[in-house]
Amino acid sequence: MTSPRYELHYWPSIQGRGEFVRLALEAAGADYVDVARQGAAASGGEAALARRLDDPRQPRASFAPPFLVHGDLIVGQTAAILLYLGPRLGLAGKSEADALWTHQLQLTVADAVAEAHDTHHPLSVSQYYDDQKSAALERARAFRDERIPKFLNWFERVLRLNPQGDAHLVGDALSYADLSLFQLVDGLRYAFPKAASRALVDTPAVKKLHDNVARRQRVRAYLDSPRRIAFNEDGIFRRYAELDG
Amino acid sequence: MTSPRYELHYWPSIQGRGEFVRLALEAAGADYVDVARQGAAASGGEAALARRLDDPRQPRASFAPPFLVHGDLIVGQTAAILLYLGPRLGLAGKSEADALWTHQLQLTVADAVAEAHDTHHPLSVSQYYDDQKSAALERARAFRDERIPKFLNWFERVLRLNPQGDAHLVGDALSYADLSLFQLVDGLRYAFPKAASRALVDTPAVKKLHDNVARRQRVRAYLDSPRRIAFNEDGIFRRYAELDG
Repeated sequence: MTSPRYELHYWPSIQGRGEFVRLALEAAGADYVDVARQGAAASGGEAALARRLDDPRQPRASFAPPFLVHGDLIVGQTAAILLYLGPRLGLAGKSEADALWTHQLQLTVADAVAEAHDTHHPLSVSQYYDDQKSAALERARAFRDERIPKFLNWFERVLRLNPQGDAHLVGDALSYADLSLFQLVDGLRYAFPKAASRALVDTPAVKKLHDNVARRQRVRAYLDSPRRIAFNEDGIFRRYAELDG
Repeated sequence: MTSPRYELHYWPSIQGRGEFVRLALEAAGADYVDVARQGAAASGGEAALARRLDDPRQPRASFAPPFLVHGDLIVGQTAAILLYLGPRLGLAGKSEADALWTHQLQLTVADAVAEAHDTHHPLSVSQYYDDQKSAALERARAFRDERIPKFLNWFERVLRLNPQGDAHLVGDALSYADLSLFQLVDGLRYAFPKAASRALVDTPAVKKLHDNVARRQRVRAYLDSPRRIAFNEDGIFRRYAELDG
């Protein structure tokens, strides 16, 4: 039986959390449609996205985008989407222990991503950045000085202690955890070029994993295509010069 | 074959994120040991916890507590621990779709918990509360006015639209998502008694679920025992009068 086409529902103008799902689908060459980017004519767009979240006929509508629709199934929360896609796309460890480890790595990436977001919105998601800038300066300093090194050092440790070598986080094959670590590093380099570059000097295996993922044929083709939305200051990783240093 | 005893490793003096695991183990009547609470003599305590995180012979040591040891398996990240325990303790939906939905609910509880933590630490986890109090006042206001209602309204929606009734989040049986929603509500009521009580007026099914979970025999016995650490101002949910309102 053929798998139905995967439908990704996410904000159409940012990488955001949806990017972790896009990367997995692209790296696996999966048949998918990025629904909200199809334009209003094709029942896409932000309005349709919001309507789906509020649809009273959908008892399992997620708290927020992204969510994935696959046949009758609807699943939200980035890490849960990847938990579902992992075995289907060949992007998770096969044993129960390895699949769980892949997921645990993803959840740790997610924690780092949430903290990266809060550097520019430390007080309220509903206020503008300019209205919380002085708090942002302080939060960003702690993130740069303490949290970026702590997260990247942990991933470096995982790579170095992997009994099957430091080319991958789980075993000796690509998993969605590798793709997500690539995206975390890519985002940190965009938003905090100075701080990320300092931290990566001490985490060469993480840097190498990032570069190797970017060189994989399907990933490279995706990154060079118009399907890859450029980083921008509406997303999670924002380049505000005053927050780097 | 008998299952080995579950070992929970978490800070011994707070509920924190470990509490979501304790509640699942207690509600299921599982055979477990809360290792760091056994005292230094029984190789417990905080020092042993820190040593285990740094042990170079453990390639899958987690980023932070809690972590669970079960036979040869070690798993960190609260949601991943519950993903592992769910089917073993009979606390997750049985079909793949229901198990995934249980997990998605848990991840949404985890997002709310992380935001609750940041109300008292909006700038840096390594600074004292008193040194970030003015930012905390602002962050707590946004959390009370916008985020508590948004999260609880979403869980209310899930309960009301559950085709099998509003007594449980998943199907018609207790899951770890119910236990975790209980804990979220309990924590919000402790830390933000006024704001939580306002929000719960509009979310009667959430309130009822909280009360019903607390009345379950094993849960009640646990809550009344010395094994339940009291809420305190070192944990995630802290009662600082100035942050409520």
